[in-house]
Amino acid sequence: MVTVQPLKDETARGEGLREVDHPTSQVALFGADRPLRLDSGVDLSPFQIAYQTYGTLNSDRTNAVLVCHALTGDQHVANVHPVTKKSGWWETLIGPGKPVDTDRYYVICANVVGGCLGTTGPASINPATGQPWGLDFPVITVRDMVRAQAMLIDYLGIDTLFAVVGGSMGGMQVLQWAASFPERVFSALPIACATRHSAQNIAFHEVGRQAIMADPQWRGGRYFLEGTDPRRGLAVARMGAHITYLSDAALHRKFGRKFQDRENPSFSFDADFEVESYLRHQGSSFVDRFDANSYLYLTRAMDYFDLAADAGGALANAFKGTPTRFCVISFTSDWLFPTSESRAIVHVLNASGARVSFAEIVTDKGHDAFLLEEPEMFGIVRGFLEGAGKARKLPPAAAAKAKTS
Amino acid sequence: MVTVQPLKDETARGEGLREVDHPTSQVALFGADRPLRLDSGVDLSPFQIAYQTYGTLNSDRTNAVLVCHALTGDQHVANVHPVTKKSGWWETLIGPGKPVDTDRYYVICANVVGGCLGTTGPASINPATGQPWGLDFPVITVRDMVRAQAMLIDYLGIDTLFAVVGGSMGGMQVLQWAASFPERVFSALPIACATRHSAQNIAFHEVGRQAIMADPQWRGGRYFLEGTDPRRGLAVARMGAHITYLSDAALHRKFGRKFQDRENPSFSFDADFEVESYLRHQGSSFVDRFDANSYLYLTRAMDYFDLAADAGGALANAFKGTPTRFCVISFTSDWLFPTSESRAIVHVLNASGARVSFAEIVTDKGHDAFLLEEPEMFGIVRGFLEGAGKARKLPPAAAAKAKTS
Repeated sequence: MVTVQPLKDETARGEGLREVDHPTSQVALFGADRPLRLDSGVDLSPFQIAYQTYGTLNSDRTNAVLVCHALTGDQHVANVHPVTKKSGWWETLIGPGKPVDTDRYYVICANVVGGCLGTTGPASINPATGQPWGLDFPVITVRDMVRAQAMLIDYLGIDTLFAVVGGSMGGMQVLQWAASFPERVFSALPIACATRHSAQNIAFHEVGRQAIMADPQWRGGRYFLEGTDPRRGLAVARMGAHITYLSDAALHRKFGRKFQDRENPSFSFDADFEVESYLRHQGSSFVDRFDANSYLYLTRAMDYFDLAADAGGALANAFKGTPTRFCVISFTSDWLFPTSESRAIVHVLNASGARVSFAEIVTDKGHDAFLLEEPEMFGIVRGFLEGAGKARKLPPAAAAKAKTS
Repeated sequence: MVTVQPLKDETARGEGLREVDHPTSQVALFGADRPLRLDSGVDLSPFQIAYQTYGTLNSDRTNAVLVCHALTGDQHVANVHPVTKKSGWWETLIGPGKPVDTDRYYVICANVVGGCLGTTGPASINPATGQPWGLDFPVITVRDMVRAQAMLIDYLGIDTLFAVVGGSMGGMQVLQWAASFPERVFSALPIACATRHSAQNIAFHEVGRQAIMADPQWRGGRYFLEGTDPRRGLAVARMGAHITYLSDAALHRKFGRKFQDRENPSFSFDADFEVESYLRHQGSSFVDRFDANSYLYLTRAMDYFDLAADAGGALANAFKGTPTRFCVISFTSDWLFPTSESRAIVHVLNASGARVSFAEIVTDKGHDAFLLEEPEMFGIVRGFLEGAGKARKLPPAAAAKAKTS
């Protein structure tokens, strides 16, 4: 086992990134004997996965639901976040009595590899140097994230997941799980995602990366060592990305052209409009909890995502003969992962003879709708899981609850 | 007349911005006796307008067409650009025998106030200090741009414009001309624009401004004086904006997920994908010809644009009883100024009893379509101007050509 040297001045990472070293989560540590074999050809070792669980694994080990998080999400899906002190990012969907019912299912959520909340990523210590990896960290893919999660599932003694659920980059992981480990995924819910990242989405990511790299405090990714902090670049990246998570209609409904704390324009470059203040707030609060290099690595992983390329150029081969049952969900106003992308998923699944249901939900909330109060989505997820639960012969919800209480 | 001191080291502005001081254009200079009264309450004086003309003004002075440029455009609409050495930005539409036929019409195009190609803007010399204005330059509006253009038209001895034409920010100026000076606009062609800037568009602009201001070389706008150059921030702003000028379909058609000079991912942060190289090129070539502060001022002017607010809150009053005839054009894949915005223009014009025709052109080229080879647009502009020419009793095209040759 390689000994990981502590960073000389751990506070160099800042309060918001203390979770890199000391996650407020359970940690699965994989030593030199169990490297993570990456798509780039590199063996990452040692490495660790920080994860949260909710509910109880049944004796048959058949009720495990893996939740996959999006680009800037983490494992704190249904508990108070240790840095922001806010509720879990998917508490609308997941919890006791919720559609993903933790009285019935054993829910697992892990920080992805490349992240900054306790799973090994560019802010973690490189055992070869005793200093944070920075850009020496190997470039990772969505398939690498899923491969790491499979090692966690093995570690937890689970053979087959009852369900894998996720939206956006989380949805990509869901599709990758079904493609890489079809026998280990009983049911899959890819939400607001696609089988590959589009040229427009790669373009938006590239602008975000350039904003970070243009910040002189980024220092070629060595900012922890040099005691600098590329927060302005990261904030600009977040502001730009945040627009793509909403919709024109939602921004109009929320802000329109309303002025902030005034009736008339200030004829200045202050945040005159409410939408400007809102975006600035989104940018500045984000940098307190996220690592700039992680942002580079995770956007890159999404850009590289392309199930067809992995399947020898033919998407049709990605899910051939899959035993998994799928529920695909999209949102009418999502222009980052528009419904046409979800239809393409459904199309290939149908052609592969898979069981698949599909719902396009009417909402003006844009891509972020999957994280928000969307009763129609809640109903669909609950219904789909209940149906899959019957097929999986899980005890009904009430019985499960009675058993745990 | 205030004497304008030359900047001590004019090369501090860089080769690409030499046009600020010495435009390769005709210049109309307005002295202390003719200030430009701005919406902010400031009198800008002295100030100058750099402009180009094409064709010949007829003896009745009835064939003048004013072309209004977009955010990063300039007066070089139909001649080789003095900095980039490229063709004029609207030579597809304007020239001898073209839809806006310079054998028939006298075409005028002026750099907007706040610009950086010879009309007074933040890179120009502030006569009070002898140094570039920087952020001491007053914030301007689209109405200010139009007010300055009206002074130029007076200077040229033209009472009524036969037509005012423009796309995007240029289209906003067209609408503002018709609203501010209805008796001076015989016909108007607002293309790919809106009666006010949307919350989403303000948000995109704000990200661009933040990218510029986050660049430490920006120095609070005093970069010329300090010998720095915020080119990285400006490039990021341009890259982000450029995505909004295209469409998902156009990016997919042009680039898809094609790799640049390789067959497989590099597992790095190089520009792996063609779309990344393309965007980086867009960013880096832009900074050679544009002033970062001008970008701040012109985006701000667009954000402030709101014809309804100017008309006491009721858009219906903006064009009441207008004598102008309108031709409104939008593009199906333009998501920056979607067709719904153009329909809103048509709606208020109809309610005002105006003559208005409207065309939505089917194209996948996005907002930039107005600058590109769009035969349907060319046909519509030509036909509309011919009809308006008859009503204005202009001699037909052939006769006009015979007269000038």
